[in-house]
Amino acid sequence: MHKIYYPYEEFKEDLKILTQKIDQPFDTILGIARGGLSMAQMLGEYYDLREIYALNTIGYEGTQKLKSVEVFNIPDLKSSKQVLLVDDIVDSGDTLLEVLKVLKEIYPQVTFLTASLFYKKSAKIAPTWYVKVPKGWIEFFWSEDLK
Amino acid sequence: MHKIYYPYEEFKEDLKILTQKIDQPFDTILGIARGGLSMAQMLGEYYDLREIYALNTIGYEGTQKLKSVEVFNIPDLKSSKQVLLVDDIVDSGDTLLEVLKVLKEIYPQVTFLTASLFYKKSAKIAPTWYVKVPKGWIEFFWSEDLK
Repeated sequence: MHKIYYPYEEFKEDLKILTQKIDQPFDTILGIARGGLSMAQMLGEYYDLREIYALNTIGYEGTQKLKSVEVFNIPDLKSSKQVLLVDDIVDSGDTLLEVLKVLKEIYPQVTFLTASLFYKKSAKIAPTWYVKVPKGWIEFFWSEDLK
Repeated sequence: MHKIYYPYEEFKEDLKILTQKIDQPFDTILGIARGGLSMAQMLGEYYDLREIYALNTIGYEGTQKLKSVEVFNIPDLKSSKQVLLVDDIVDSGDTLLEVLKVLKEIYPQVTFLTASLFYKKSAKIAPTWYVKVPKGWIEFFWSEDLK
């Protein structure tokens, strides 16, 4: 698959575009680690929110190509009404689907909105807002720049 | 106080310096939100660790200038042996002191190492590793670049 380097400068511009698209209020940003952490931090600064949380997922390849996703380190959302869930890319959609399922079970009263930089149209779920469709394998600056 | 803009390029170079200084093993990186999130993500990619967690703090100004820090959303560290705690700056040291106190109470068997980009020599605690002493008020790129 064609590799495309994604530099910080493009990330910054894409986050600006994302903030222009986001047209619903939220009081909490929840980044899916690792991919959503820098996004969560920068959007948290932009929206002047201190409720910037993270959670973790692990994907397991099961039999017959069934993928299961474990969601853990879920933050306390008792005081949150609208949560913006952020991740770098919605690829298969497996992670986002499972995260939303788990979060809605625990916090049925919370509205969950979702945002990503990239979204593959073949994914099982679309984020509420996204910026780009990937045209190859994205090599994010956070994976490449310390090499 | 003299303001100093801290761009992504300097952050990247400083993280490289930090990785050269870090000379003890760890199996988990724990970022103090919001300041430590991008650091945690990039170091997690560099060290190829998936155990990249976050926690939150709130500082309250009490009477007689006593500052109290609340630590919450503490991740599950039962499987961790050595945790690298990261934050952008150790300023007064109040946050790092309280975070370490709370974490050591809950996880007495875990070794906690600490790393920051900036460290003020007047702080009550020094991180295990740091890169720079601030020569003014640091305006980090993550606070400035979406403005």
